[in-house]
Amino acid sequence: MTRLFLRLFLDGLMLGPGKIELLEHIRDLGSIAAAGRAMGMSYKRAWSLVEEMNAGLADPVVTSARGGAGGGGAQVTETGEAIIRHYHGLMQKAYGAGAEDIAALEALLAPQDDMVGGK
Amino acid sequence: MTRLFLRLFLDGLMLGPGKIELLEHIRDLGSIAAAGRAMGMSYKRAWSLVEEMNAGLADPVVTSARGGAGGGGAQVTETGEAIIRHYHGLMQKAYGAGAEDIAALEALLAPQDDMVGGK
Repeated sequence: MTRLFLRLFLDGLMLGPGKIELLEHIRDLGSIAAAGRAMGMSYKRAWSLVEEMNAGLADPVVTSARGGAGGGGAQVTETGEAIIRHYHGLMQKAYGAGAEDIAALEALLAPQDDMVGGK
Repeated sequence: MTRLFLRLFLDGLMLGPGKIELLEHIRDLGSIAAAGRAMGMSYKRAWSLVEEMNAGLADPVVTSARGGAGGGGAQVTETGEAIIRHYHGLMQKAYGAGAEDIAALEALLAPQDDMVGGK
């Protein structure tokens, strides 16, 4: 099964699967630290990716409250949700519109040994 | 202007812009060494990328004659041409079908200073 890896070089911001997955984890876990851990990423690294997105966009993708009861938390903003949605939209459309080209490329592949043996 | 970076993980073969560009240079220059040089790549590296494609596909992407008058040369096969064509086809379709999502992402970007000054 063919998978696509898609990265966008927007004016002043690079968006790829890593940042999108990070946003999704923040949305689900309510915490940048927990989202980073879920991806095997340091808190510092996760923060810097969020900061990178915030710097490139007119509005932040994540709002966070530091400290306080429970140690603060993080929420994905409407802009963050839009980023997630349009990235996935683009991916789905690439798979859909590109289905014939992908199938044509797959048809050129070498036969896979592990599918020939029948075991 | 937004650019897309697209890589395909096919069964047993990874295809991205580097391999496609290399094939195009081989087609235009008739030589793997010259194609590598055009991309600032060693002969060894260029060869290994060609070998990787040949190994993953049912038919080779490049045929080469070593030695002989002129030191041999390389030709992109029909399979190689198909790889180039369908990769670009997929890219064009991703840009086309994804235009709305790309525009929506662009609309979220921070204003660029160098476009505000008017100079």
